[in-house]
Amino acid sequence: MIIGDKIKIEKKVLSENDRLASEVRQKLQRRNILSINLVSSPGSGKTSLLEKTLGTLCNKINMAVIVGDVQTENDAIRLKKAGGKLVAPIVTGGACHLDARMVDKALETLDLDKIGVLFIENVGNLVCPAAYDLGEDLKIVIISTTEGDDKPLKYPTMFRKSSLLIINKIDLIGLSDFDINRVKENALSINPHLGILELSCRSSEGLKEWYDWLISTAETKKMSH
Amino acid sequence: MIIGDKIKIEKKVLSENDRLASEVRQKLQRRNILSINLVSSPGSGKTSLLEKTLGTLCNKINMAVIVGDVQTENDAIRLKKAGGKLVAPIVTGGACHLDARMVDKALETLDLDKIGVLFIENVGNLVCPAAYDLGEDLKIVIISTTEGDDKPLKYPTMFRKSSLLIINKIDLIGLSDFDINRVKENALSINPHLGILELSCRSSEGLKEWYDWLISTAETKKMSH
Repeated sequence: MIIGDKIKIEKKVLSENDRLASEVRQKLQRRNILSINLVSSPGSGKTSLLEKTLGTLCNKINMAVIVGDVQTENDAIRLKKAGGKLVAPIVTGGACHLDARMVDKALETLDLDKIGVLFIENVGNLVCPAAYDLGEDLKIVIISTTEGDDKPLKYPTMFRKSSLLIINKIDLIGLSDFDINRVKENALSINPHLGILELSCRSSEGLKEWYDWLISTAETKKMSH
Repeated sequence: MIIGDKIKIEKKVLSENDRLASEVRQKLQRRNILSINLVSSPGSGKTSLLEKTLGTLCNKINMAVIVGDVQTENDAIRLKKAGGKLVAPIVTGGACHLDARMVDKALETLDLDKIGVLFIENVGNLVCPAAYDLGEDLKIVIISTTEGDDKPLKYPTMFRKSSLLIINKIDLIGLSDFDINRVKENALSINPHLGILELSCRSSEGLKEWYDWLISTAETKKMSH
């Protein structure tokens, strides 16, 4: 009985979220903003990647970040220090994912006319954020080499719904049993259309390819209108 | 309106879970079984720690494992290979945490009279499993050094509800900005009663202290009846 009620209300919550996400999407589309929902386990390197990206590309792309955490605005502080001019923190206060309502509210604090690329850094969680559309153009899932190469099989929905997989911490390959070919095979078996980039935020190896990918994806988005 | 309904049904679900957890707890207490709910991010080393523990202590303690994953029984297979004789897999099929009902069902497949210590390996997720009592004696939270020393502040509930923090992958200290003293300070600022062990499942450093802790905690449990 309770389980039936739970499923019913979850469906309602998700359909209300979809409605709001569609409004967010229209708002962003009208201004040709490329929007990216960045998802991963805690500690895979979402904030580190954004620090590097904000620092390096600030003269080439107008970037904004909505950054979600269960508690603390520490990541938002890090991103502002790294050169982020448009950073909107969301503290979910317990919730395990961002939803479209939170993003819509955070957007009110940003000057949308000044944004070319919007990153939405989700709560560190490989499960729940997969269920909530935030109105983004695409999801990027980050996995770090220290997490093990089996994760795509164990958390398939996130890999199925993402457009790009970033394998971070490649400087630590060889220090664990992580097999980079196996993680790619596992990820592609779940989602054959997944793009894959390998990099290390610490050693900077592979970051150029990421910047190229981002610039070209933002250009394509701009030209699509 | 939907949010109000959602909160109401969540309260019902949690109170029903508490009722079932209390039944599980009584079932385990009657047999003096020490039960441990093992929680962490994906890839922190829950399964690796259990592999080592099952392999090393199989002649000293009768151990059983209930192992939860969103998808695949891969971890259960690993644990059986490592010498686990009593291993019960739960595939949640999407759910981001174990609940007491799943554990109760898994217990039916195990011979409780043969168990001294029951490990419940939860889904890799630092948020949602914190809300669900499984009828366990205590929670152990694992964090790996590659995840960053800020995690206790960002996911406080899990650290507040745990009795022991295991810091895994200490062989990789120095290869990231992780500061072991800072992670301890952060964890103790959330929960001053938290025990802390440091180890590496890969290099085996610190495992002896973990085995000693486990044997002595299991002994204390047995004597308490």
